[in-house]
Order: sequence, then C-alpha cells, then structure tokens
Amino acid sequence: MPMGGDGRGRLLHLLDISARDGQVNWPARVGLVIAILLSVGSAAIVTLPDLPAFERFDCQVATAVAGVMFLAEYLWRIWRAPLLDPDLPHARRRYLLSFIGLVDLLSAAPLLGLVMPELADTLLLGQLLSLFKLSRLTPALSLVATVLKSEWRALAAALLVMLVLLVIASGVMYLLERGAQPTVFSSIPRSLWWGIVTMATVGYGDMTPVTPFGRLFGGMVMLLGIAMFAVPAGILATGFATEIRRRDFVVTWNAVARVPLFTGLDATRIAAIARLLKPQIVPERQVVVRRGEPADAMFFIMEGEVEVEIEPPVKLAKGQFFGEVGLLLDTTRNATVAALTETRLLVLDRADFQRLMHQHPDLKARIEAIAAERKR
Amino acid sequence: MPMGGDGRGRLLHLLDISARDGQVNWPARVGLVIAILLSVGSAAIVTLPDLPAFERFDCQVATAVAGVMFLAEYLWRIWRAPLLDPDLPHARRRYLLSFIGLVDLLSAAPLLGLVMPELADTLLLGQLLSLFKLSRLTPALSLVATVLKSEWRALAAALLVMLVLLVIASGVMYLLERGAQPTVFSSIPRSLWWGIVTMATVGYGDMTPVTPFGRLFGGMVMLLGIAMFAVPAGILATGFATEIRRRDFVVTWNAVARVPLFTGLDATRIAAIARLLKPQIVPERQVVVRRGEPADAMFFIMEGEVEVEIEPPVKLAKGQFFGEVGLLLDTTRNATVAALTETRLLVLDRADFQRLMHQHPDLKARIEAIAAERKR
Amino acid sequence: MPMGGDGRGRLLHLLDISARDGQVNWPARVGLVIAILLSVGSAAIVTLPDLPAFERFDCQVATAVAGVMFLAEYLWRIWRAPLLDPDLPHARRRYLLSFIGLVDLLSAAPLLGLVMPELADTLLLGQLLSLFKLSRLTPALSLVATVLKSEWRALAAALLVMLVLLVIASGVMYLLERGAQPTVFSSIPRSLWWGIVTMATVGYGDMTPVTPFGRLFGGMVMLLGIAMFAVPAGILATGFATEIRRRDFVVTWNAVARVPLFTGLDATRIAAIARLLKPQIVPERQVVVRRGEPADAMFFIMEGEVEVEIEPPVKLAKGQFFGEVGLLLDTTRNATVAALTETRLLVLDRADFQRLMHQHPDLKARIEAIAAERKR
Amino acid sequence: MPMGGDGRGRLLHLLDISARDGQVNWPARVGLVIAILLSVGSAAIVTLPDLPAFERFDCQVATAVAGVMFLAEYLWRIWRAPLLDPDLPHARRRYLLSFIGLVDLLSAAPLLGLVMPELADTLLLGQLLSLFKLSRLTPALSLVATVLKSEWRALAAALLVMLVLLVIASGVMYLLERGAQPTVFSSIPRSLWWGIVTMATVGYGDMTPVTPFGRLFGGMVMLLGIAMFAVPAGILATGFATEIRRRDFVVTWNAVARVPLFTGLDATRIAAIARLLKPQIVPERQVVVRRGEPADAMFFIMEGEVEVEIEPPVKLAKGQFFGEVGLLLDTTRNATVAALTETRLLVLDRADFQRLMHQHPDLKARIEAIAAERKR
Repeated sequence: MPMGGDGRGRLLHLLDISARDGQVNWPARVGLVIAILLSVGSAAIVTLPDLPAFERFDCQVATAVAGVMFLAEYLWRIWRAPLLDPDLPHARRRYLLSFIGLVDLLSAAPLLGLVMPELADTLLLGQLLSLFKLSRLTPALSLVATVLKSEWRALAAALLVMLVLLVIASGVMYLLERGAQPTVFSSIPRSLWWGIVTMATVGYGDMTPVTPFGRLFGGMVMLLGIAMFAVPAGILATGFATEIRRRDFVVTWNAVARVPLFTGLDATRIAAIARLLKPQIVPERQVVVRRGEPADAMFFIMEGEVEVEIEPPVKLAKGQFFGEVGLLLDTTRNATVAALTETRLLVLDRADFQRLMHQHPDLKARIEAIAAERKR
Repeated sequence: MPMGGDGRGRLLHLLDISARDGQVNWPARVGLVIAILLSVGSAAIVTLPDLPAFERFDCQVATAVAGVMFLAEYLWRIWRAPLLDPDLPHARRRYLLSFIGLVDLLSAAPLLGLVMPELADTLLLGQLLSLFKLSRLTPALSLVATVLKSEWRALAAALLVMLVLLVIASGVMYLLERGAQPTVFSSIPRSLWWGIVTMATVGYGDMTPVTPFGRLFGGMVMLLGIAMFAVPAGILATGFATEIRRRDFVVTWNAVARVPLFTGLDATRIAAIARLLKPQIVPERQVVVRRGEPADAMFFIMEGEVEVEIEPPVKLAKGQFFGEVGLLLDTTRNATVAALTETRLLVLDRADFQRLMHQHPDLKARIEAIAAERKR
Repeated sequence: MPMGGDGRGRLLHLLDISARDGQVNWPARVGLVIAILLSVGSAAIVTLPDLPAFERFDCQVATAVAGVMFLAEYLWRIWRAPLLDPDLPHARRRYLLSFIGLVDLLSAAPLLGLVMPELADTLLLGQLLSLFKLSRLTPALSLVATVLKSEWRALAAALLVMLVLLVIASGVMYLLERGAQPTVFSSIPRSLWWGIVTMATVGYGDMTPVTPFGRLFGGMVMLLGIAMFAVPAGILATGFATEIRRRDFVVTWNAVARVPLFTGLDATRIAAIARLLKPQIVPERQVVVRRGEPADAMFFIMEGEVEVEIEPPVKLAKGQFFGEVGLLLDTTRNATVAALTETRLLVLDRADFQRLMHQHPDLKARIEAIAAERKR
Repeated sequence: MPMGGDGRGRLLHLLDISARDGQVNWPARVGLVIAILLSVGSAAIVTLPDLPAFERFDCQVATAVAGVMFLAEYLWRIWRAPLLDPDLPHARRRYLLSFIGLVDLLSAAPLLGLVMPELADTLLLGQLLSLFKLSRLTPALSLVATVLKSEWRALAAALLVMLVLLVIASGVMYLLERGAQPTVFSSIPRSLWWGIVTMATVGYGDMTPVTPFGRLFGGMVMLLGIAMFAVPAGILATGFATEIRRRDFVVTWNAVARVPLFTGLDATRIAAIARLLKPQIVPERQVVVRRGEPADAMFFIMEGEVEVEIEPPVKLAKGQFFGEVGLLLDTTRNATVAALTETRLLVLDRADFQRLMHQHPDLKARIEAIAAERKR
C-alpha cells in the first residue's frame, strides 16, 4: 500500500489499480477490466473457422489494444515494485518471477503475435491467462487461493487416495475388458481415461465395459468413485464456508474497531468484544426497546438509522450506540427506540456488558460520561 | 394485506389469491392452480408432432380458458395495486414493471395466439412462464428467491471463479485437440461447450478429447470441475438450511406471541423468550411430569392435548401451559400430566423461568394469578 | 409386540420375524432373507435371453419355493394381525391395505405365474418388490422412511422448484433447437427428457443442443441444475445425519434407563440425564482416574471392563459405575481405575452430578449407600 | 515400534520404513516410493500396443528392480514380525495373512512373470496393488480406512437402500423397455447396468429408455438416484471431517502433554485441559497483551516466537507460556508481549485458569514458582 505524503506516493496511489478502496482509481480498474474482456473475447472469436476477414482484423485490433495496455501495466508494475515496500529486497525480481508476474508477461505477449503471425496461435494462451489478472480486482479469486492454501493437506490426502483408487480400478478394468474390446481398452493408460471419466461421473460413453464382470466391477467403481470424489468437494465447500465466516468476523472486528468508544484497545481485546456481539436485523419501523421495560442489552448501529422517541426525537446512525443508560443504572428503559430504516445492530447483553465495564474502568468512565450527557 | 373495516377492503380480502391464511380465498387459489396446469399442459401437448386435429382443438380451448383467467387476474391486479398500500406512490406502474407483473402479462398473452396463429408458437413461452405464478401460492419458490438474495455475493464469487476456470480450460483444450479433431474442437467457443458439459459432469460425449495430452488435461479439468462446482451447490444447500431454520424460528416466535401470557411484549423480548424454549415431542399416553418429582421446567402446548390427572381430570390444549406451580413455589410436582395425543411442547426450564420472572414482575404476577386459581 | 404369559403369546413371540431382539427368532428371519434372495435372483436370471431349459426350470423351482414361503408368511400375518394390539380395531383390514401388506401379497403372487405362464412376466415385479420386505428385518430401510417423513415439506418444496425450472428450461430449449433438430427436439415432452437428463447431470448424449444459443442456454441450465439438484440431496443428507444422531440419543437413553441406579425415573428425567452424559472411549490399559487426583466426574460403563486398583483389585463391567465416592465426599480419588479392554464410558461431571443429587434426594441416598459399602 | 537399547532393536529402527518420525529412515522410505513408481509405471507402459522392443525391455528391467526390492522388503518384514511386539503370538502368521501382507506378496510376484512370460499379464495386478503399500508411508490412506471403519454401519445401511432401489428400478425399466428395445434391455442383469450408470449420474448413453413411460420412470429414478447416492457421500465427507478434527485434537493433546507444566498428568486430565484451550493465530509484530490492561487469559506458544518487552527484552518460543502473572495476582498486565513471527498460541482464559488452579494445587504451586522467578 503506497504511503501518501510525497508526490511520488500520491501518484502511485492515483494509478494503483490494485487498491481495494475503489474510489480513487476506478478509471484504471475499469480500463483493465475492458482490456481483459477485449483480450479474451478476441482470442475466442479469432478461432472461429469461417470468420470474415474484416472481423479477423477487428480481433487483431482488439488484441493489439489490450496488449498495449497490458504491456504498459507490466512496465509500470516493474517500475513500481520496489516502491511498495521499501524494506523488501529484490522486489523487482520477486515480482518478475511471481505467478502473477508471469501472467502479466504472458498477457502482454500476444502483441508479439501481430508481428510474427506464426506465433499468434500459441500466444492465444496468454490472452486467456489474462483472466487471472482479475484476482487483483476481486476478492473471489483470492478466496480460492486462500482456501486451497489452508486446506491443501486434506486435499492432497484425498487426491492421493483418489489417484491410488483410479490407477487400480483402471488396471483391473483393462484386465477384464481387453479380451472383449482389444481396440477400446487397448492399454492401461487408455483405461485410465475410462477410470477418470467414470469416477468423476462425467461418463462420455466413448469407453464402456461390455462384459458382465467388467460391468459388475464398473458399478462398484462408480459407487466408490462418487463417494471418494465427494470428499475433496466437501473439504472445499467447508473451507469456503469457514473462510467466508472468518471474513465476516473480520468485518465485525473492523466495525467494532471503528466505534469511537473502543478506540485505543488492542487487537486481541477488540476480537474479544467482537465475539461478544450478536448481530440482529430490525425491520423498518420496528420498536427495538420500549420505555419502561427492563434493560437487558445495549446496541451498536452497524447500518441504518434509529429514532429515540424523546422530546425532541433524536436520530442515531451508523457507528453510534444506545441502550447503555438502563444497563449502567440497572433501571428500566427510559425511552422507546424504533428503527427508521432496516437497521443492522450488534447487541451486547447485560452480563457481557457488566463484565466488560468491570475489566475496563476507563471504558466505563467514557460510557458514563456520554450517558450522563444524554440524560440531560 | 388489505385492511378490513370498509366494503372495498372486505371484497379485496375475499378475492385475494395471494393471501396466506388459506381460508377465505381457496376457490380463487384452486382456480389459479387449475389455470396454470391447463396452460402448461396444453403448451406441452400442442407441440407433439402427430397430434390429431381434435386434440389440438382441445389444447386451444385449454389455452383460451387459462388465458381468459390470467387476463382477468391481470386486470384485477392492476386495479387492486394502489389499494394494497395506499401510501406507496406509483403502485400500478410498479406492479406493471415488476418481474411478476411481466409474468402475469406474458401468461395472458397466448390468448393473442388464438387469433394470430403465426404468433402461437412464440407465445408458448408465456404459457410455460405462468409456472412462476406459483410463487404467490407456495412459499417454496419465494424461499429460492430469498436464498439467492441473501447468498448472491458468495454465489457470484463462485460463479466468477468457475467462469475463469471454464474459459481457460476450454481454451487450453482447444489448443491441445484442434490438431487431432479439427472439426470437433474447431474454435474456442465450441470448446467452451466441451468445457461446461465436462465441468458440470454432464458428459454428453458429443465432444471428447482423444490425444494423450488432451485426456490428461481433461482428467485434471474434471477433478477441478467437480470441486469448484460443488462450491455453489454447497452455498445454496447451506443457504436453504439457514433460511428454513430462520422460518422455523419465526414459527416459534409466532407461537410464543400467541400465548395469552406474553401478550403486549415487544418483538425483541418475544424473540428472547422464543430462544429460551426448547421443542419436545411427547408420544401419545406418555407421562410428561409425575406427581412428587421435583419441578424443573414449565411447558407450553404447541399442538396436541394433555390431561392433568387430578380430580376431576383437566384437559389442556394448544396455547395453554402447565408446570408453572412447582416452579413458582419451588416444590415438587403436585399432579401427573400425561399426553392424550402426540403433543408438541415448548419447554422452559427452571433457570430460564426464574430469570424471566425476575425481569418481568408483571409476567410473574399474571402467572401467579393463574397458578393460584389452578391450585384451588 | 406380543405379551408373554400365555401360550398363544409365546408362540407368537417364537415365530415373530419382525421382532428386533434377534435372539429367539433367527431361523424365521434367516429363512425370510433366503426366500427374498431366491425370489429376486430367479426373477433376474429367468429374463436372460439364451438361458438353457434346465436353468429356467431351476428358476421356476426357486420362484415356487420363495412363493410358498411368502404365502405362508402372508397368511400368518393376516391371522396374527389382531393379536398384536388387541385394542386396535380392524387390524386385519389395516394390514391388508397397508403398503407392506400389498408388498406381502405381490411377493406371493408369482406362485400364480407357475400355473398361468402368460402372467409370469408381469408377476416378475412382485418378485422384485419382495425386497421391500427387508424393511422389517433391518432398520436401514425404515430409516429412509423416517427421514422422508420428517423432511417431506422441505423436499416437496425443493421438488416443486426443480419441476418448475425443468419445465421452463425444457420448453425454452425446444423453442431454441427445434429449427436445427426437428426430429430430436420434436416436442416439449421430448425436450423434458433432455431437461431431466441434463439437470440430473446424467448426460446420456442422446439429445444435445447444437445451435450456439441452445448451447449457451444449455450451459446455464447445467449450472442451475447442479445447484438446484444439490438442495434435496443436502436436505436428505442432513436428515439422515439428524436421524442417526437421534437414534444414538435413544441408545444412550436406553443405556441410562438400564442402569439400576436410575430405575423408576420417568422418561423426561432419563432424557435429561442422558443429555448430561458425554461419551468417552478409553483405550486398553489406559488409566481413567488416578489415586490422589481431585475428583471431577463419575463414570458409567457402557461397554468393556475396568479394574479398580485396590487390594484385592475389583473389576467393574457394563452397567456399573465408579468415581462417585470422590464426588460425594468432595475429596481426591481414593483409587486408580484403569481400562482392561477398550471401554466406552459415559461421563457425568461434577457440576451436573451435584445438580442431579440436589434434585433427587432418593438418588443421592442410593448412591451414598453403594459408596458407603464400597468404602468398606 | 522397536525398543532401543540392544543392537537388534537399533538395526530394526534404522531400517524401519514404517516409522513415522521420518528422520532416521528416509533412505528406505524414498527407495520404497521409487520402487512403487517403477512398478506401477512399468505395468502401465508395458501394455501399450505398439511399444518398441527396447522400451518393453526397459519396462522389464524396472519390473525386475521393483520386484527385487519388494521381495527383500517382504522377507525382511516376515523376519521382523515377531520383534515388533514380542508378546503377540503368531506374529508371522498374522502378517502373512493380513491384507497388507498379501499386498506385499502380490507386489513381489511380478518377478515370477519375468521367468514365466505367460503369467506376466496376470501378474500386472500385483504391480498395481503395490500402490497400497503407500498406506504405510502416508496417513492419507489410513485415514480412509479409519473413516470406513467408524462409519461402516451407516454406509452399509445406505448401500443396502441403494441396492434395493437399484434392483427394483432396473427391473421395472426392463419391463417398460424390453418391448421397444429387446436387444438393449434384454434381461434384468443388463438392465441393472442401466440402473447403476443412471443412478450414479455417470450416464454413458449406451443404454437409454426410449418409450414415454420408460423416460418418465427414468426421470424419477434419476431424481431418486441423486438423492440416495448423496447420502453415502455425505456420510463419508462428514466422517472425514470428524476424523480430521479428532486428529487435530490429538495434536493439541500432544502439544499440551509436552508443556513441562503439565508433565505427570493422566490422559483424561490432559484431554480436559486440551479442550479448554482455544487456538489463536497472531500475525507478525502484533501485540498480544499490552502493559496496564487487565489480565484475562494466559497463553501457550505452539509455534513461533514472542518478545516480552521488559528490560532486557525476553524471547519466548514453542512450549513456553506467558500471561500467568496477571492471572495469579489478579492485576493488570505488567509487560507488553508482541509476536516476533506469526505465532500460533493456545489461549486459556481467566475462568478456566482459576478452575484449573483450584483443582490442581500442585499445578498452581509450579506456576507460582515460575511466576515468582519471572517477577524478579
């Protein structure tokens, strides 16, 4: 992340297509998405067999435009690499040899195909790989990377089991079927194609057993295949769920850290508070707390707006909190609070509130100050 | 929801096919289901190639009947739109431009095909789309909409990853196979068909790799495809489970809100109580509490009937509660209670009961009044 | 369940093939399994096109043997029906009209085919349906029935959504493809076959779209199909998991009910205790509690054997308990206890133990008596 | 596991390819993996139809090399069997008759094929089965065995249900289709092939129903098939997840057992402590606890390094703990602790800490001693 404060840093920030705030640099990001679409689209269309010459020319123009943009991006990234983290040694070499650096290079390579048409065909691949550049623009692809990284041990174990079963099943099927279909099941490597097509339940039908024993064994392989192939799918699905939950927690954490009340607490403590809070969605015009009821929780507004029905009514919005007075004084609610819009709240209930106040005398003091002011 | 009190509102209620209580307006609902079945059935049958002329005529009659009903419904809905929520501006325009409004229009459109036979073919689509009208009659379709809405971010992320993998896999397979099968893998767009058919594990077999490298790469794509395609399925399945659980909670909430004891509590508080209650199913003739045992819970009857074995025996049914006397006086059970039919109970245990009583002195007073009456 | 005490009941018990204890009546059960295998096997083999005459005869013999056994079973079940629950009116008619009653009738019907060979072919179905008789012999099939019953609302909702999508997808594909393949996509009913084969990811390949728009739409249908078809699979899988957990709870419940200490408690209270117990598996020769350590739990032996290392050592087995002395006297362990074999224990920890003792003075008295005796 | 102390045991340990510590015996393990790859690879390549003679010779050499290694391993394992557990009777016979013993024998058998070429073909199977030897080298395959063992009851139940449905579905399809396709659906055993191919959603397309009723029934079978085949997949996936979690717990358990503080506690007690600890990952340079904050937890370092910021700073690494002083004296933190590297911690919070100290006066004494020393 570029640090502001000097002209170079500001320029960097202005151009930085990988920044996540999405405010300053949307033109660069939109341009990059357009270039990716141009690149992939032209690669796909140019392969159509009976393409009119002028459309082929259009594709070459698109390839050229995207290629120039990717080349510019590549050069800019090489120049910028050492500026991102001045402490990191060999930043340029690291970038050049990274996976995404190679993708950036290959994405720009189709430019070469325009001058050397005999290479154009092979360089198509670079145009397709430019899709991986999207990983800088959306967290979706990086999510996959994170999940693969955190679950790779379980995945590798499942994959090894699947490979062992695949090889053995294919070998046995070769032995069973080569007599009846010597040209179809002509070798174990060919039989492996039957194995993977069957165990993945794709079932093209280009190779099928015809002997009774082949079919009996094939049926058992199918049962086993489905069961074993379900395991990595399950691992990945669980991994995704966990990762998405983790990111949700980080969102809550950030929301809590942004509440003025909690400024200055360290990460572990904010995490502890974040864990105490339970989300609640209140529909429009619903009453959240009612005057005269016992106070059993306080509320932080994450999104939306509520109205405290006192004279004159007070509106509270994102980042503010309410319901603390009743908890502090251990009395009933002194005002009704209703949601003006659909409101997302985080709820801190009485017991957790009191434990928190007890552990943080300074937090208690701050809340009491605000409460005292509100009471007036 | 129409408000009663004036004639127009009452008429509206009587005719309202979208009402959920299912009591007043069943004739309209049944009529609509019949019209949908007629419409879809005639659309399917009329396409049969060697249909006798008289059956074709029957189909046209069915189309006409359904079309007239849909047209009437459509006009009625346009007329009614502003009455549903008088505060909402442009209610008619909103309805006309909504998805379900367009479905209502297209469902009625096949009527046009009867006078302009050259359009009949295209208007078949409208007849099929009338199935979406079912979403007003059953929560099943709206459940899908809710899940898609709440999970769309995760689904879009998974879809993007799948599309990126699909395009790259198909492009690479095109490069690997076009030499061996120039007419089958003739372009990247055609190769995309292979990609989606394979990664979705459908595997028609109309396009299959034949080269060793093509098959090796194809096997890897299958493994990847299964894993990646499992992710949206997992997200949807989890989303459905969550949504169904949420609706179950709403059912409990409504059940609690209908218990006379809890009348006048606000939504948050009823939700709190609903969370304290644990469901329990008691088979026919089973004893729920036994005289002389210590009292550790009170029970709310959700469905079924129980008998309090005192002299004379007392029957309690849906909406009533028992077991509170022992909790209030902290004594043993003073009567055996047995289920007369299979009974669904919600159980509130001692600790939760006492916390509740402590927080709601008025609730305590009400329960004590009923308990005192029962003791006599 | 037949009540013992009179000759008729005892006879009933001896013959009862549906009894679950699996001790008295294993000959009847084994006989029935053999009859089912004979029946299904002969039905399958008799259809083989080039079967030698003598093997065809063998099949007829097997059919006859199984048919006679099924007929005997059927008549016996009709005779027995009213004895099972004397209070139930119309027990015979109920059995005759029940699903399993019809299965019993159809299973015996192939006998008829031996005298009327022209019916034999159709009566094959009865031989196959005899497999449903297994549901009386194993809980596996009844598990499916229970899950379907408890999840039918969610399943019906998912099925309805799938049917709506199927019909609309098939209709649209018909409109897209009939121009290019008028003989393949010749009508909507035929297109429905494409729809179900594709959305279920079976993909025979007998009907595939060939136009670009047809393939684009087909790809979208595949994505949607996988996602939607995952929902009922997810519901069923979850339902099975829940049901298996519930049965595990019932097993614990029964184990608790069989502990002499808890005799005479009612069902709700035993359920409450069962919920408090946590299972623990201790490997052979592992120490469970060590002399001198503080006592924090007592243990019930579900399976296996432990040795209390005092002089002389005492062995405790299934149904017995230990570790209660330390809890009662609030002291440290007065003896080491080690597992002689792999032992399944249920653990009741200190806090739950004390709550239980407080609520059941009589239980406390009984435990104190046994503990006092053991101390001596 | 061989015990050290005498020469024979040490030799055994040096050669032991099944040892899990992966330090002493990597040459043997690497050799075995190479032999497995040679064996499987040569088996696959030798079946290629148009293999040049010299490559066929290479394959025979590879088969011979692998065969000799496997034979040596087999003999060594027979010799070693009684040494592994001197108390176990018939150790050699047990090994010879075990599944892995048979695999070891069959893996060496292809050596025989070199002298008797007419057997070489059949002995290919042994070469493939040598893959099962991997189960000694990686926990992945043994994980599958464990899961199958622990879930076999549920799997067998699901399998039985699937078989019943498969037989009935195939039989009915035979009756429906044999009229239209007498050569395709020629018997029930052949129809079973359609059933399994369809219900497993493989869908080769070599057998498909063509009659309207056959297709209607086929569609229902597909729906049912997907749902039922999802059940064993779900059971296996859940089983894997549980088993992996269990192994994680064992890892925590071992980590706790290795903390000097907990030396001498029995297994149950360590398990209890392991359950109390919550994992936390702290990124590089993050502050874990801050001087002056209230103390609410103590930390055990599982991986990585932290620095206690006192004068002079103290580094703590794997196996050490911190944060206990504040808990013991119930004061605020007396020093800031920051992670030097990404650090995996196990957190024991205040309430659990105090319960633990109360139950283990000796543990308390030890911690107090270390804390006292640190304070100085």
